[in-house]
Amino acid sequence: MSSQNQLQTLKGFRDFIGPDAQSRRWLIGKITEVFEKFGFEPLESPALEYESLLTGKYGAEADKLIYSFEDRGGRRVALRYDQTVPTARIVSQYRNQLTFPFRRYQIQPVWRADKPQKGRYREFFQCDVDIIGSTSLLSDAEIMATTYAVYENIGIPSLKLMTNDREQLIKAIKNNNVGEEMVFSTIQTIDKLDKIGKDGVIEELVSKGMIQQTAINILSQLNQSEPSEMLKKIISYAISLGIPKDNIVFKPTLARGLDYYTNMIFEGFIPEYQIGSIGGGGRYNKLIDNLVGIDIPAVGIGIGFDRTLEAAQELGKVPNFKTSTKVLVTVFSDELISASLELTKKLRDQNIAAECSTEAIGKIDRQLKYADKKGIPYVMIIGPEEAQKNVVQLKNMQTSEQKELNYDKALKILNS
Amino acid sequence: MSSQNQLQTLKGFRDFIGPDAQSRRWLIGKITEVFEKFGFEPLESPALEYESLLTGKYGAEADKLIYSFEDRGGRRVALRYDQTVPTARIVSQYRNQLTFPFRRYQIQPVWRADKPQKGRYREFFQCDVDIIGSTSLLSDAEIMATTYAVYENIGIPSLKLMTNDREQLIKAIKNNNVGEEMVFSTIQTIDKLDKIGKDGVIEELVSKGMIQQTAINILSQLNQSEPSEMLKKIISYAISLGIPKDNIVFKPTLARGLDYYTNMIFEGFIPEYQIGSIGGGGRYNKLIDNLVGIDIPAVGIGIGFDRTLEAAQELGKVPNFKTSTKVLVTVFSDELISASLELTKKLRDQNIAAECSTEAIGKIDRQLKYADKKGIPYVMIIGPEEAQKNVVQLKNMQTSEQKELNYDKALKILNS
Repeated sequence: MSSQNQLQTLKGFRDFIGPDAQSRRWLIGKITEVFEKFGFEPLESPALEYESLLTGKYGAEADKLIYSFEDRGGRRVALRYDQTVPTARIVSQYRNQLTFPFRRYQIQPVWRADKPQKGRYREFFQCDVDIIGSTSLLSDAEIMATTYAVYENIGIPSLKLMTNDREQLIKAIKNNNVGEEMVFSTIQTIDKLDKIGKDGVIEELVSKGMIQQTAINILSQLNQSEPSEMLKKIISYAISLGIPKDNIVFKPTLARGLDYYTNMIFEGFIPEYQIGSIGGGGRYNKLIDNLVGIDIPAVGIGIGFDRTLEAAQELGKVPNFKTSTKVLVTVFSDELISASLELTKKLRDQNIAAECSTEAIGKIDRQLKYADKKGIPYVMIIGPEEAQKNVVQLKNMQTSEQKELNYDKALKILNS
Repeated sequence: MSSQNQLQTLKGFRDFIGPDAQSRRWLIGKITEVFEKFGFEPLESPALEYESLLTGKYGAEADKLIYSFEDRGGRRVALRYDQTVPTARIVSQYRNQLTFPFRRYQIQPVWRADKPQKGRYREFFQCDVDIIGSTSLLSDAEIMATTYAVYENIGIPSLKLMTNDREQLIKAIKNNNVGEEMVFSTIQTIDKLDKIGKDGVIEELVSKGMIQQTAINILSQLNQSEPSEMLKKIISYAISLGIPKDNIVFKPTLARGLDYYTNMIFEGFIPEYQIGSIGGGGRYNKLIDNLVGIDIPAVGIGIGFDRTLEAAQELGKVPNFKTSTKVLVTVFSDELISASLELTKKLRDQNIAAECSTEAIGKIDRQLKYADKKGIPYVMIIGPEEAQKNVVQLKNMQTSEQKELNYDKALKILNS
């Protein structure tokens, strides 16, 4: 009836079952908790937009990765490719209703028809927080402090933010007589410094037509430079907002691959888990104008959801989600079904996640096996004797210890 | 640069901004809280599946509403149309890893190219909870009790569950010599009883070729019938699990429009907000076999997310989400930026959602206006005098009352 093919997940797509889904929900909870504490409001945009909104916004290469099609009404539509373009559309569409500066966060899946490989998926969550309609340096600092607080909240206070001033970077390049048309290409090469090293950068710049000495000069001048006055202010504000002094570092060669950043840029790194930047952002004062024709400045960050979850898992910060159920209430016999159901209800009323056995009624061994297989930490057994004496048997599935207790004492253990 | 068209939301799609998104997050939180307390685990399936998995599963009419297209690799793919078919695929794909009974919940958007109208969208959330791999009547009761507990948790304990036994309904129809081929069509008409009344049902059945007296007999026999032994047991278990006796009602004419239900069926209604059923479900022992060729029984419910949110809003159960920010810390002057930032950090450390003014530094009036426009309930002012005396001015934006307080007293008010 069904071909085998259709019964599989599409390549580059993932199912999240039980503990995997719970870990994701945990991380989303940790992130939104901070976002809301910092006064950002949630935003949800539709999965589908007019294709014309998206095309030409991410560059020619990216255009090929947009999932687009004709809908049944003959409209060309496309799946969300990022969250910045839909937000720009929303800022335009609702500009008379919104209060600016508009502080919003957005955590939703995006879709890209990229070649799947380790750590790269066709469906993945983006996690953006932005302040739109503010040129204030305080807003730059707020975005940085929000980012740091997110990692603090998931138990990674070691997060280091590297920051730079795009304007200063561009000035250093131009001061060496690099033509306007080569500036962004030069930035893209400098952005690879950590990956390919100083020699690699020089080599690539030369291959792009730059005189070797110019490349050497740019790098050495950058390395000797001091943060701009603007950046110094942002850093000092960010420290006042809670980033420890040592966790925010001026990095004059930080470049960021995207061309739309105008001033402050920054990236986050986890020293004890080196998988490259776990997210980055900065100020983009011209982007919304370019996208939707409204001149409105903005600053923000995109946090890498999958990378952050991976790091939190590797560093042992994610709770061990085996199952949401804390206790299984067994059913001893048909006669005792009601007693077990009522006990289950009582536990739930006390906010204990509880299941009542639905299968193998009367066969306690099989019910215990189910609890064991699912990783449920406790089992409560109520037989005719227990029912009469108004007690329960509480079995700790990890230690196999079993105790006869009254309900209140059992509850105490479950709550501990 | 941009056509006006592309700067709009597609018809049938919605943006959720600020309070709207917060209300949705609130409802999802309330629902998942109950689901997890009842021992259900989250599941997330991809937005895209092989088209062949979806087509032919929902009926010919529904097939026309599936968003499907050819991806860049030449695969026919389709957007999630419901959550049952992907779950059936997952049960098949991971059947050796899953523990059965598999208790899962799934809350995700689905897409249907339906004609948009009031209350009907092309993108909307479904909210399903199911027990897969159990024929136990306790599982039927668990699903009912979970449903009731969800509405109890959102402040609507008046929810009434109407329930019936599909087998008994079919028997009553067949007992009146209705041919096998007419049975489901008869059920579909009986399902309209509340909308079109008894005469309407009889009229429609006659138009479908039934003798009028037969139609009259079926309805009158149904109305005189008692719940089956099976249904009596389920109801008694559901009561043990916490549904008040009066909130679960046997309704012998309850039919449910979908053809796949095999035994117990039920629907939820809110007496004080009559918009029809807010969700429904039942037992579907053959569906997974039909979908993916694995004979596995199941029982579940789909809760109508939009309807439930609408009901909760109309009944005043949704908190008033104006903004997530509890207090705006103003900035008196450039010299006092750090003092204001540090105060903001201190508040956030105490879990108070706080914003620091980023704009109009030194212009307290404009900063107050921003707080007012956003609906931020409190404003904290710290000028040179306050900084020196180590106090703050706390302004209640609703009453306009302003008090000079030390930090601890201000915190107490913000926490109350």
